[in-house]
Amino acid sequence: MSWSATRAHRIRWAECDLHGHVNHAAYLVMFEDMRVAHWESLGQSFRPNSVGPVVAQLTARYLAPLAYGDEVTLSLRVPSLRRTSFIHDYQVLKEGKPVFECQAVLVCVDNGTGARIPIPPEARRLMIERDGATAE
Amino acid sequence: MSWSATRAHRIRWAECDLHGHVNHAAYLVMFEDMRVAHWESLGQSFRPNSVGPVVAQLTARYLAPLAYGDEVTLSLRVPSLRRTSFIHDYQVLKEGKPVFECQAVLVCVDNGTGARIPIPPEARRLMIERDGATAE
Amino acid sequence: MSWSATRAHRIRWAECDLHGHVNHAAYLVMFEDMRVAHWESLGQSFRPNSVGPVVAQLTARYLAPLAYGDEVTLSLRVPSLRRTSFIHDYQVLKEGKPVFECQAVLVCVDNGTGARIPIPPEARRLMIERDGATAE
Amino acid sequence: MSWSATRAHRIRWAECDLHGHVNHAAYLVMFEDMRVAHWESLGQSFRPNSVGPVVAQLTARYLAPLAYGDEVTLSLRVPSLRRTSFIHDYQVLKEGKPVFECQAVLVCVDNGTGARIPIPPEARRLMIERDGATAE
Repeated sequence: MSWSATRAHRIRWAECDLHGHVNHAAYLVMFEDMRVAHWESLGQSFRPNSVGPVVAQLTARYLAPLAYGDEVTLSLRVPSLRRTSFIHDYQVLKEGKPVFECQAVLVCVDNGTGARIPIPPEARRLMIERDGATAE
Repeated sequence: MSWSATRAHRIRWAECDLHGHVNHAAYLVMFEDMRVAHWESLGQSFRPNSVGPVVAQLTARYLAPLAYGDEVTLSLRVPSLRRTSFIHDYQVLKEGKPVFECQAVLVCVDNGTGARIPIPPEARRLMIERDGATAE
Repeated sequence: MSWSATRAHRIRWAECDLHGHVNHAAYLVMFEDMRVAHWESLGQSFRPNSVGPVVAQLTARYLAPLAYGDEVTLSLRVPSLRRTSFIHDYQVLKEGKPVFECQAVLVCVDNGTGARIPIPPEARRLMIERDGATAE
Repeated sequence: MSWSATRAHRIRWAECDLHGHVNHAAYLVMFEDMRVAHWESLGQSFRPNSVGPVVAQLTARYLAPLAYGDEVTLSLRVPSLRRTSFIHDYQVLKEGKPVFECQAVLVCVDNGTGARIPIPPEARRLMIERDGATAE
């Protein structure tokens, strides 16, 4: 399936660690704003008392190192969803080759109480119709 | 198997995000110094031209949220190793209950060239004899 | 005047940057939990609708570099206060010598509205009587 | 004097803290890549054995809070230089109004030895002729 969102990114100084390469945790931070923007694109918000997705699981593969100043492409897609959770795939490409791949399980919770709740209907509809997510 | 290393940790302000909980990437940073200390305990160093472990894969499960000031216990163990790679398990406990579990595949590389190389013999021996790692 | 609070700290991997030294912004993060703990020691909290101090000004001097694993001492004191603001001095010592000195102006605001408000009386009393702050 | 470099920036999730505003240390990180880019624009590099500027002093004023998603403008200029050091001014504008102002003293050091050394002639010439810096 194709990617739903793509952003150009230049590796920042703060993303690199002592070894001169992007730190493994920094890859996850790179995708944070794309995840937020995707949720907002579903007609949702990040207000204190609204429904919000939280990261429940992550599986990441680091395929090649990145260095300060590298020009990369960040991509996001939504392969599938269930009643209260959905999947995000993230990918970093450098010169057309994948250097990082990650799959996240995101669970919808009530930001006030932390209780798990169903994906809002509008978000569910857009992930299926627009993003091509498969309902499981 | 039992844990090889354990540290008490108090959740820092900088580890929490807008939602008031520890950010998912911050969990990985929590274990960074334990990983470094474990490598050093194997008679190894992090010098530019030495052998160093890099994170090749991560699988993480976030079981319950953590908040600023929470007192937690961080644990690390080494379930298994191969010729050029080894596994780290990480766990965060709060009041005796796991709130985060992670497994990392670490690959030994030459820090100068980035080439994959065998685990140094002394490190291999200690991970098996001291840490109880299974050679696969 | 003497220091009101002191903590031992070991330089973390995540605090160092590409050059192998502690990044200038990381020094500020080091003092964040001490600042929070100091505010709590004044009988105050960091709840959403309470009074909280925000950083209004910073003056920092970086006297010598720090590296991964360095053992340092972090200190905090409160030289003076006014009606709605107070001063924090921060210092990092390595082997008895100052390597970082910083002065912060902290302003009390209503965390809900952001409006500037007087230092709560109990906090004011403790900063003068316990911490030795001079009222200006 | 006018600004030498300007960048549009959208406040990132990771830049905000528990209070919902940009953390005071995050402002400094925002300017890191502009500082690096400015140094590179002077014909210099950040290689391990070259000359590099390190932050020796900072004076920062936080004039108004920023929130996630705010669109801001980051600016940098070089008001003056001496033999081994130069000054950077940083400013964050939101809707045309300054919300953050900072002045940094940067000292040129040999990245290998840490010794203080003169600003390289080409960098010195460009800061004066192109950036309008005053030699003191």
